[in-house]
Amino acid sequence: MAEEVCVTVWNEFRHERYEPEVRAHYPHGIHVVVAEFLQALPGIETQTATLDEREHGLTQEVLDATDVLIWWGHLAHNEVEDSTVDQVQQRVLDGMGLICLHSAHLSKIFTRLMGTGCNLRWREADERERVWVMDPGHPIANGLDEFFEVPESEMYGERFDIPVPDDLVFLSWFQGGEVFRSGCCYRRGKGKIFYFSPGHETYGIYHQREIQVVIGNAVRWAAPAGSARPTFGNRGPLERLAGN
Amino acid sequence: MAEEVCVTVWNEFRHERYEPEVRAHYPHGIHVVVAEFLQALPGIETQTATLDEREHGLTQEVLDATDVLIWWGHLAHNEVEDSTVDQVQQRVLDGMGLICLHSAHLSKIFTRLMGTGCNLRWREADERERVWVMDPGHPIANGLDEFFEVPESEMYGERFDIPVPDDLVFLSWFQGGEVFRSGCCYRRGKGKIFYFSPGHETYGIYHQREIQVVIGNAVRWAAPAGSARPTFGNRGPLERLAGN
Amino acid sequence: MAEEVCVTVWNEFRHERYEPEVRAHYPHGIHVVVAEFLQALPGIETQTATLDEREHGLTQEVLDATDVLIWWGHLAHNEVEDSTVDQVQQRVLDGMGLICLHSAHLSKIFTRLMGTGCNLRWREADERERVWVMDPGHPIANGLDEFFEVPESEMYGERFDIPVPDDLVFLSWFQGGEVFRSGCCYRRGKGKIFYFSPGHETYGIYHQREIQVVIGNAVRWAAPAGSARPTFGNRGPLERLAGN
Amino acid sequence: MAEEVCVTVWNEFRHERYEPEVRAHYPHGIHVVVAEFLQALPGIETQTATLDEREHGLTQEVLDATDVLIWWGHLAHNEVEDSTVDQVQQRVLDGMGLICLHSAHLSKIFTRLMGTGCNLRWREADERERVWVMDPGHPIANGLDEFFEVPESEMYGERFDIPVPDDLVFLSWFQGGEVFRSGCCYRRGKGKIFYFSPGHETYGIYHQREIQVVIGNAVRWAAPAGSARPTFGNRGPLERLAGN
Repeated sequence: MAEEVCVTVWNEFRHERYEPEVRAHYPHGIHVVVAEFLQALPGIETQTATLDEREHGLTQEVLDATDVLIWWGHLAHNEVEDSTVDQVQQRVLDGMGLICLHSAHLSKIFTRLMGTGCNLRWREADERERVWVMDPGHPIANGLDEFFEVPESEMYGERFDIPVPDDLVFLSWFQGGEVFRSGCCYRRGKGKIFYFSPGHETYGIYHQREIQVVIGNAVRWAAPAGSARPTFGNRGPLERLAGN
Repeated sequence: MAEEVCVTVWNEFRHERYEPEVRAHYPHGIHVVVAEFLQALPGIETQTATLDEREHGLTQEVLDATDVLIWWGHLAHNEVEDSTVDQVQQRVLDGMGLICLHSAHLSKIFTRLMGTGCNLRWREADERERVWVMDPGHPIANGLDEFFEVPESEMYGERFDIPVPDDLVFLSWFQGGEVFRSGCCYRRGKGKIFYFSPGHETYGIYHQREIQVVIGNAVRWAAPAGSARPTFGNRGPLERLAGN
Repeated sequence: MAEEVCVTVWNEFRHERYEPEVRAHYPHGIHVVVAEFLQALPGIETQTATLDEREHGLTQEVLDATDVLIWWGHLAHNEVEDSTVDQVQQRVLDGMGLICLHSAHLSKIFTRLMGTGCNLRWREADERERVWVMDPGHPIANGLDEFFEVPESEMYGERFDIPVPDDLVFLSWFQGGEVFRSGCCYRRGKGKIFYFSPGHETYGIYHQREIQVVIGNAVRWAAPAGSARPTFGNRGPLERLAGN
Repeated sequence: MAEEVCVTVWNEFRHERYEPEVRAHYPHGIHVVVAEFLQALPGIETQTATLDEREHGLTQEVLDATDVLIWWGHLAHNEVEDSTVDQVQQRVLDGMGLICLHSAHLSKIFTRLMGTGCNLRWREADERERVWVMDPGHPIANGLDEFFEVPESEMYGERFDIPVPDDLVFLSWFQGGEVFRSGCCYRRGKGKIFYFSPGHETYGIYHQREIQVVIGNAVRWAAPAGSARPTFGNRGPLERLAGN
């Protein structure tokens, strides 16, 4: 508890290199902005990794040293190697936290862990998103007001094809008429997963205070916790079976 | 509602062909016994399919005509083609019910839909399993007493590496000292999934009255229901965005 | 299953007697409109009961013969006798379904069964409510499209101080900027509870087709089901404790 | 987070005064033992309160200064004043944690917050209870092995008439043939509630290391967290309603 939480911020890092509109908001990449505001929090150590590094920057060594992995991807989900997805999934089941941001809803790792299509409705129309706190006692909502607004957002709307969240922390209202489960917690194996939808690359959403508060809270919530790693397989009885 | 529920009972059908002890209980295969007791219920039509048929007996045509698919597999999970798993998963997301029995916890289709390892502890020791009803108002428990016993059962014990069930209908007690979430409901996409653990091939468990009651109830619960199939993708606003 | 579901529609029945605007929509009371459209469905038998009848029309005899109780109240929650609330709660725990409509969120019976304050934000501004299906495979959503609209509705908005629903069927969007969990399922004891929020008395909402579809579906979902009534108290062991 | 968690341990404190068998385990009362092992943990401050003190030791002042309230009661649930129950319930909804131990399942405050009967099967037969971790990543399971045993325990068995827990942390196996949801989490309002069943007064269960670990973890989990206190009632629109 008193120890540092080691966070790896993973980013596809394509938009920022090729699209001036995105680069204007994130000149060094979304991952750098996210890593910086997390690094400024007490008890959090960050590093980054990106798609085009060797093994996507996610060697087994890196994963083994990661307490919480943050994932941002959009254009190139299919370029992520299945072997990396296998390793990340196993680490989550073994207790690593995973925070999937925005368009990571269609990443291989998120759909793999959900088991569903994870599709949704969307629209880019610079419209207002109002994020309501659904679970005011949840640690991921620490320090927030009853709701906050994202002035310009990409609409992500229901039906969002996910399993029912284990905790539903945020619900978003959109100007154009939709609602969305924008902050969803899952427990899978020993690991905790948080999906948080605001974060379209053409807006400076990761510079917004409330967004940073949520992601910081989510890191602490998703940090490894719990009992001994479960063991599986053929086991002798714990009680005498005599007289069976 | 008044229409027939079309059930396809799928079986790996290997044990029964090669192991006399299993054949003694299920001379024509587990699938035939399950299909027969379901067929005897009003409003249910059954057919069977097995691993060694062409496309495992699960062509797109068969799947499209199936309301509820029952799955029993054990030795040969890996022989099921990924293309079949893809098709079954899609049909579940589109509303087909799926009932996974006993060792199907490690089938490709179940682990795919769960997103976790689905592993557990097990022991073959002919011990008593007492199945407790956890949700006495659940339709899958219709007609049961507060608990029932399986006189000789394979132990399946926690930790069972599954997502938290949407409904937990049964909890099992084992003589040797373990507990197990033996009846678990999931909603995935438009589809409903029920996992039910009793059913080891060397015991005549599918001949037991209570087991047949549970599977019959589960078929009715898992039959397709609900609203229009959700649509996804880029969508115009439902409300005027003027003044945005 | 093939038997009739006996529904008692309970109404406070005050607004309709004293307010012309309400009487215009429901000249004989909301309960009569609800009972009539339910009565028209196959397999449903209805009767009504109102606050100002003896024992509020809910004698033990009436309750014992009721499979599903529908509750509409607003002005006079406190006039409902605690003894009636006790009896209704016990019947729910014993398996009777309960459907609480609109302002029944603050009824004694609903807050008693929830254990929370059940408060919310509200506004009467004739604004549009768009009701989104959150669980497209849920039987209460049978026959609906992906969403439907209530052209003029009272706003009920989050934070809604309820326990996390066992199933969340509907989520509403409001023109003025709020979201609301408008269709919530709970299992309590052997009974099933459905809360459905659209239904303000100054609009003709219970005349709308989709609203009637939802309530009809909810009646079937909430009808008694399940295993034997649980027994409690001091019990001898089911297994030998020798050698303990 | 860095601040102290203020815990009030409430005990009925009757058994220990009148029954030598109980006094042998808890000469100064169960509350003193629980307070002492919690006080030894970093970041936790404890005080105690008992039934026979003025206002049961739970004045509004005491409650307002309490982050987490622990409750042990058995013989005298009915002697707790309703006004105290009202105050405790409101504090829970406002964010205070509540940990209900063993026979507190029938306390006024627990049944009030659950909305159900909270009854169960029980037996005093000095039998072994094996407590299995159901949710190995849950913070309440921190530091435990896959299961632990209570050598002599009172059996508490299903059907336990509670709402489906928001998190199910522990499941118990009993020698005599029953299972029990022995560690259950609920979120109600802004508050968190944990029910933990081991703890019969005639055994020295609260002296057992694992039991102390669980209660210590539960205190940290239940400590107040989250967003601003929700506000309710009549509210103006957040968006323009022109053109409505």
